Amino acid sequence: MQQVQSRMEAALDRLLPAAELAPYRLHEAMRYAALGGGKRVRPLLAFAAAEVSDADAGRVEIAAAAVELMHAYSLVHDDLPCMDDDTLRRGKPTCHVEFDEATAMLVGDSLQSLAFQLLAEHPLADDCATQLGMLRTLAAASGSRGMAGGQAIDLAAVGRSITLPELEFMHIHKTGALIRASVVLGALCGRALAAREIAQLDHYAKCVGLAFQVVDDVLDAESSTATLGKTAGKDADQNKPTYVSLLGAARAREFALELRDDAIGALEAFGGRGLRLRELADFIVARQF
Amino acid sequence: MQQVQSRMEAALDRLLPAAELAPYRLHEAMRYAALGGGKRVRPLLAFAAAEVSDADAGRVEIAAAAVELMHAYSLVHDDLPCMDDDTLRRGKPTCHVEFDEATAMLVGDSLQSLAFQLLAEHPLADDCATQLGMLRTLAAASGSRGMAGGQAIDLAAVGRSITLPELEFMHIHKTGALIRASVVLGALCGRALAAREIAQLDHYAKCVGLAFQVVDDVLDAESSTATLGKTAGKDADQNKPTYVSLLGAARAREFALELRDDAIGALEAFGGRGLRLRELADFIVARQF
Repeated sequence: MQQVQSRMEAALDRLLPAAELAPYRLHEAMRYAALGGGKRVRPLLAFAAAEVSDADAGRVEIAAAAVELMHAYSLVHDDLPCMDDDTLRRGKPTCHVEFDEATAMLVGDSLQSLAFQLLAEHPLADDCATQLGMLRTLAAASGSRGMAGGQAIDLAAVGRSITLPELEFMHIHKTGALIRASVVLGALCGRALAAREIAQLDHYAKCVGLAFQVVDDVLDAESSTATLGKTAGKDADQNKPTYVSLLGAARAREFALELRDDAIGALEAFGGRGLRLRELADFIVARQF
Repeated sequence: MQQVQSRMEAALDRLLPAAELAPYRLHEAMRYAALGGGKRVRPLLAFAAAEVSDADAGRVEIAAAAVELMHAYSLVHDDLPCMDDDTLRRGKPTCHVEFDEATAMLVGDSLQSLAFQLLAEHPLADDCATQLGMLRTLAAASGSRGMAGGQAIDLAAVGRSITLPELEFMHIHKTGALIRASVVLGALCGRALAAREIAQLDHYAKCVGLAFQVVDDVLDAESSTATLGKTAGKDADQNKPTYVSLLGAARAREFALELRDDAIGALEAFGGRGLRLRELADFIVARQF
């Protein structure tokens, strides 16, 4: 895991515009937002999925960087005063606190463009039809029927009582869509897979994405701000519906374990090639930060 | 021109997510921001450039919609309180006034994703390598070295005295990059063009883009809010450097005419196929709104 994390840090450092390139302040802020932190869960998933299709690590690195930049943009925009109004992220001041709101908005906008640019500029698949498919996957996962749509559903739910299926619908969009894209893009960098194999990977990713969110809710409720590197207890303060508020912490933990088992079950056909994906599913439900 | 404008309105109406699709408020706001207004200058340029390569109108419509959605996103974000803080756009309340700031931010984010999604989902060129090139062109024109970068330079210039080359550098990024992308994408929908032909189209677009901005500055200084459909005299109020503040209105008008002549000069090799592009260059410097 540390190997993938340091590889990603180096790749993002190389792929982001240099701070010496104009507009300087914007590029400095983009680097601030995307470098030096984060668990890099999406790149870890992309690299693990790449083992299923024997994909070239150089390709996977670019695809993983695209997904990670998309994730970084969403964090910068989510932290803005008009959204979650948060001041701490990965143990550092959020982008709009360190720079300013206008710059943070442009950072998010530019990171999104850069994510698509990476997938369009680098040869990532044996044929360019597959590569167009990768762009389609990332675009659909990011837009109003994916991540940004999930954010809109989240906003509408603050202070309102919602049901468990509604909560699940929100997370499947807000964080799940991009996690599924990570797995699919990593796998698409290698040999062609059957539609059935893609569907199995997608089911794995759907379960893992939801498990990740359930664990996030438990950690937000039970950890300190220092441990998390972001403001803890925020969901309860903002009266946000979470798995903990709907199920209680004990049942939420159980639910995360059930989702992990479901995810691992979807990998059966891949045998030894699914090892890393299985390990990641375990890691995601066991993590303490 | 009216034919292209109504064609684009119908295309955008069809390509945007329906307001009956969840998340409803986000989709309603995306449609509010992108439909029912605007001169559609970028689609007009794409359709005019398509005549150079005999491109299929069905393809050009999609490429033009992608560019127009990218433009619409930039307007929604530019109007936000942390940027230009504007309340009027195309004669209507701006998106964050009609909805709210958080929704407006997600509208911009989602329109950007949708622009890339359109170019990745629809068959727009004879080979998919060309289509990947279209995605590269749009991504580069939108990001920190294109439109969003120009916006950052613009922000840094408010209240500061800048030189004419600095002003030009800003506009070449802020509005020029997407205008050039419109022309190139429109042409790429058709038969393959020589690198020299693409360069000529790009020079045309660079000059027309700058002329468009010079005229915008003149109109902002000399028109009423009612005529413009957006707040007039804003540049002077915000102490923004403009072609009018640097050159005076009379010399700025002359400069726009020189740019038009330069643009039209670049079309010489295209003969009759460049007719629409010539007409558009004339229209852009003569427009009164």
